[in-house]
Amino acid sequence: MIFKNDTSFIGDNFLLDSKTAEKLYYDFASKMPIIDYHNHLSPEIIATNKPFENLNEIWLKEDHYKWRAMRANGIYEKYITGNTTPYEKFEKWAETVPYTVANPLFHWTHLELQRYFNIKDLLQPSSAKRIYETANKSLKQTTPRQFLEQMNVEVICTTDDILDSLEHHILLKKNYTSIKILPTFRADSIFEIEDHGYNSYIKSLEELCNSTIQNLSDLLECLQQRVNHFHENGCRLSDYGLPQIYSEDFTDSEIDSILTKQFSGKALSLFEINNYKSCIQYYLSKMYFAKGWVQQFHLGAIRNNNKRLLTSFGKDSGTDSISDFSQAKSMSTFFNRLDNEGTLCKTITYNLNPSLNEVFATMMGNFNDGSFPAKMQWGAAWWFSDQKDGIEKQLNVLSNIGLLSRFVGMVTDSRSLLSFPRHEYFRRILCTVIGNEIDNGTLPNDINFFGKMIENICYHNAVDFFKFDK
Amino acid sequence: MIFKNDTSFIGDNFLLDSKTAEKLYYDFASKMPIIDYHNHLSPEIIATNKPFENLNEIWLKEDHYKWRAMRANGIYEKYITGNTTPYEKFEKWAETVPYTVANPLFHWTHLELQRYFNIKDLLQPSSAKRIYETANKSLKQTTPRQFLEQMNVEVICTTDDILDSLEHHILLKKNYTSIKILPTFRADSIFEIEDHGYNSYIKSLEELCNSTIQNLSDLLECLQQRVNHFHENGCRLSDYGLPQIYSEDFTDSEIDSILTKQFSGKALSLFEINNYKSCIQYYLSKMYFAKGWVQQFHLGAIRNNNKRLLTSFGKDSGTDSISDFSQAKSMSTFFNRLDNEGTLCKTITYNLNPSLNEVFATMMGNFNDGSFPAKMQWGAAWWFSDQKDGIEKQLNVLSNIGLLSRFVGMVTDSRSLLSFPRHEYFRRILCTVIGNEIDNGTLPNDINFFGKMIENICYHNAVDFFKFDK
Amino acid sequence: MIFKNDTSFIGDNFLLDSKTAEKLYYDFASKMPIIDYHNHLSPEIIATNKPFENLNEIWLKEDHYKWRAMRANGIYEKYITGNTTPYEKFEKWAETVPYTVANPLFHWTHLELQRYFNIKDLLQPSSAKRIYETANKSLKQTTPRQFLEQMNVEVICTTDDILDSLEHHILLKKNYTSIKILPTFRADSIFEIEDHGYNSYIKSLEELCNSTIQNLSDLLECLQQRVNHFHENGCRLSDYGLPQIYSEDFTDSEIDSILTKQFSGKALSLFEINNYKSCIQYYLSKMYFAKGWVQQFHLGAIRNNNKRLLTSFGKDSGTDSISDFSQAKSMSTFFNRLDNEGTLCKTITYNLNPSLNEVFATMMGNFNDGSFPAKMQWGAAWWFSDQKDGIEKQLNVLSNIGLLSRFVGMVTDSRSLLSFPRHEYFRRILCTVIGNEIDNGTLPNDINFFGKMIENICYHNAVDFFKFDK
Repeated sequence: MIFKNDTSFIGDNFLLDSKTAEKLYYDFASKMPIIDYHNHLSPEIIATNKPFENLNEIWLKEDHYKWRAMRANGIYEKYITGNTTPYEKFEKWAETVPYTVANPLFHWTHLELQRYFNIKDLLQPSSAKRIYETANKSLKQTTPRQFLEQMNVEVICTTDDILDSLEHHILLKKNYTSIKILPTFRADSIFEIEDHGYNSYIKSLEELCNSTIQNLSDLLECLQQRVNHFHENGCRLSDYGLPQIYSEDFTDSEIDSILTKQFSGKALSLFEINNYKSCIQYYLSKMYFAKGWVQQFHLGAIRNNNKRLLTSFGKDSGTDSISDFSQAKSMSTFFNRLDNEGTLCKTITYNLNPSLNEVFATMMGNFNDGSFPAKMQWGAAWWFSDQKDGIEKQLNVLSNIGLLSRFVGMVTDSRSLLSFPRHEYFRRILCTVIGNEIDNGTLPNDINFFGKMIENICYHNAVDFFKFDK
Repeated sequence: MIFKNDTSFIGDNFLLDSKTAEKLYYDFASKMPIIDYHNHLSPEIIATNKPFENLNEIWLKEDHYKWRAMRANGIYEKYITGNTTPYEKFEKWAETVPYTVANPLFHWTHLELQRYFNIKDLLQPSSAKRIYETANKSLKQTTPRQFLEQMNVEVICTTDDILDSLEHHILLKKNYTSIKILPTFRADSIFEIEDHGYNSYIKSLEELCNSTIQNLSDLLECLQQRVNHFHENGCRLSDYGLPQIYSEDFTDSEIDSILTKQFSGKALSLFEINNYKSCIQYYLSKMYFAKGWVQQFHLGAIRNNNKRLLTSFGKDSGTDSISDFSQAKSMSTFFNRLDNEGTLCKTITYNLNPSLNEVFATMMGNFNDGSFPAKMQWGAAWWFSDQKDGIEKQLNVLSNIGLLSRFVGMVTDSRSLLSFPRHEYFRRILCTVIGNEIDNGTLPNDINFFGKMIENICYHNAVDFFKFDK
Repeated sequence: MIFKNDTSFIGDNFLLDSKTAEKLYYDFASKMPIIDYHNHLSPEIIATNKPFENLNEIWLKEDHYKWRAMRANGIYEKYITGNTTPYEKFEKWAETVPYTVANPLFHWTHLELQRYFNIKDLLQPSSAKRIYETANKSLKQTTPRQFLEQMNVEVICTTDDILDSLEHHILLKKNYTSIKILPTFRADSIFEIEDHGYNSYIKSLEELCNSTIQNLSDLLECLQQRVNHFHENGCRLSDYGLPQIYSEDFTDSEIDSILTKQFSGKALSLFEINNYKSCIQYYLSKMYFAKGWVQQFHLGAIRNNNKRLLTSFGKDSGTDSISDFSQAKSMSTFFNRLDNEGTLCKTITYNLNPSLNEVFATMMGNFNDGSFPAKMQWGAAWWFSDQKDGIEKQLNVLSNIGLLSRFVGMVTDSRSLLSFPRHEYFRRILCTVIGNEIDNGTLPNDINFFGKMIENICYHNAVDFFKFDK
């Protein structure tokens, strides 16, 4: 399948279905800086600020979206995560691109080529070499920081293990003031008590904290130290990538026994594991509240479905999937307990299964308490839902069940430095959704009002919500 | 966020996307009387027929939709359900309204201001005082019955606890013939055997029935008395607001033991509780069948998620949520048992989780038996789904899986006397859905045919289905 | 409800919303032959090739979609599956048709009348007799094979019990070469160990295989014989209509004990039943892999909900329903086990509950291994989802999460010889979906590219995927 030569794809009114949408986008949305409060960028890359070698390095090397598409297109693993030259991998991606039409990758690919490299050709085998060389030339002349600055980025929140020293964040804070690069306290590892390496993970925590962990109280003290360390270095958000929220009843002494058992090398029961996780989740949340942080929950993934790739490659190989188990009751129990104690912090939940959109949107609405507008946020369309239909659905369900006007907006959630046009993508869709409602009379005809609302969703709501240090 | 002054919002063709839709609405749908066969109006208010004091009283005082929006907008509880002046509460609502754009509340608010008070201004802080005073003037000059009559209401079915004396219904039947105000047998309380107050609830039932309840047979006799009492006073519908249908196997003697245990003050197991509920559900359904009633099931809510508000305010405080547990198998078992015995009455199910639309629509279709067209109805979009998208989805799934032409149509399900424009809202959407299909050729171009079908859905199907006394 | 006389319904641009869609349909899609790789046609009817008696015989007699609609329309069972004349049944169907507007049956009905009998009148009581007589005249002059040939069918895969002798397929292979009529290995019966007739089913298998089945090894040997027999007669696909995939851990010796218990007439526990099913599923799948077959899974039905009709009529009476239980984890476990062992064959899953679209689409993506483009397919919208909205949803979710361009396309899944216009129906929708994206600029403006892609989805992808014998 070969495209004819045509450089008109993704024009000025891409995704803007009306004059009203264009006005909302160009007069309001497009002017807003970007606060990317959840992504997986490497702070080291920004700290060292070394230009990338080639397009494979910056674009394909960590992108499991592209890998899934290549596998679905019948490409052998060798050319995806295996041992071959960067250009051979790029060629296989170029071969796959025409087959991704109607998948968000097709839009992202060409939007990124345009915005970062001013390349308007469609990527396919016949254009692969030319595009690779043009982009590589650009890459060598551009630092990671320049790429971010071009996109009008103001704040970036990376995703960092709680044992992370944050050395790169500390360096960046000293040396680089144009963009705030802040850490996020991602606590997943401390939940993984069923993993073989858990006791040595605890050992590392002990060393880092200069402490001995024998019971819950010791453990919490160390976790508090880490929270303090993150806070001192600008962290204002936590995050979880857990399948669900854990909200079992537990007593501290039960947890002491579980830790004793765990440290003695005995296997825990599922009941004990869930109690342990519930305990950690509860106490961490109270620490976040005390610091005024926002807690994020990315719920509903079944990770590493393919053990073959887990073994040969490792985690995040692109074999994660959407779950279909229940989420509502555990969320309710957890938020209710903290709300009752007056220690429920600002919260954003993201659901992987779009069939749960309404479940999440209503659940968050139960725990707003007047302390802050939309304190309980149902977050942007996530991962497999981060595409035109998924974004529209999220915006519409949020509108129908909550307050769209109070939404803190989009994140890239990406490992790639080239993913920032996803904010543009989101903003264009948002402007079309609102523009259509204005045009068909289901919203009042008041461009300035909705322009302001869109500015809030794109930028100001996040500024107000996260309260990052100036 | 402030709207410019503009009174053109919600014009004649509001929600009508084509000339065909306008024709269907104005020539057919709009002319039909309203049969509001499920709502939560107070019969006392209609019986006493006293004008309302102010807009807060009639509009905000019991509207948990508005409360949720206000909480989401960061308003303190004091101004929502707390102790402050009616106007202060109204002011906070006026402050919130601009933030509800794209939520159904924004449409409902302005539709109700127009239809009941001829107010075309958008509600916001700058218009709050003027609107409050204009509406209050109108309110003082209009009785509740006049409000209903203006809306062309023909029948209203309220929602009444089975212990209710129905005194107001009895009075209304004697004194007020313009609109039928009928009771609905809402049996939820008799299921709540896990509640602290259950034994005293049974005591009240005993007193009301002049009877002693020691076993299942006594209990059923009392319930039959209440069914008879409701039937004599015009009741033709029952309703449940339970999370799910209970359909466990049970024996009568098991239930006797459960009652003995319960009356002795001992705690029941979950197994016993579910068996008890299954028993009550089964026998009540047989009583309804014998009376020729319609049974309604509102399934899938997780209620009172927020214990703080449950304690400070009570039930229905606006912290209910959409569940994500399974519904299909228990529905199947329950309906099948009754169908097999030839005692399955006309039934309407409503699902709170729109992800179960197709599950409900197919399940109902399994138990039609030729005794009445669409004997088994999948009901109108409910609660959080009662908005434009939710209504369209319900209409489309019903079309795709069942017979839209046999649908008994819309209900307000509201506590407010001002909610009747929700029928207009539904009818406009219905006309646009059908109009679009005619215009794009997926339905035959026969306005009279579809006009008649729409009249049926808005009115005649309900007349035929419920067979209220003339 | 009566339609005015009008023969313009379903014109040339039916379902084609734009000039682009028309071009894609008429220049590309419509020219492709049909590979109907999953249906329930009787091979005997094609083998004997006897014309049908009347429209009831070919159209209503086995169509549980129509039966459900008639029951929903209040028609008594006598006129549906009962003992009355063919014309009386047809009359009741004609009476029901106007009430099916907006249900896919309304489209199918009139599309089939046009395509097979050139009848353009709307079916309703006033046209019933005329239509019945016109169609019957046609029917007497047309053989089943002629009907298939008119539709440009190239391959048909029927659905056959594993005990089937395949005598009609064998005859057809010898005598009829215009269309390939191939069997599919439908293994459901061998899973139904909880059924009363299971031991006698095993007995039949023993006789057919000239063998004695006392343990798992015996059983697998017989199953292998049946797989061989099907393969020799052109079978390249298997199919399951199970509620879910079974993927429990089991050992062969456990299964031996279970079989011993079963053959001795003792009841099995649910645990044993699930282990047994998991074992059969696993070993069959390995046999399919060895033969290079494609395995199909139709997951998520709750069958025979209405015991009254199950007793009076039997299975497939039109009382099947959409389930709401989980599917993801068992799929993951099953596919992962086979992938790890290198014995996962090409697979197509179909989900009955459209709320699981995204769950299925992501799960399939985890197990592509580069051996074949889109080796793991998420199949066409199935059964209750086989209508315009359902087809659009499937296409869009597949686009968003997988590679639409690699999709193997549509099947009729029908028992009726008159259902082949469902391919036309699907193709028209596909062309409109793609045409709209081209027109609004979300896909490049390259008709030839998308024409080719549509040809692949309608035909070539299936040719490449199934590799039927030439």
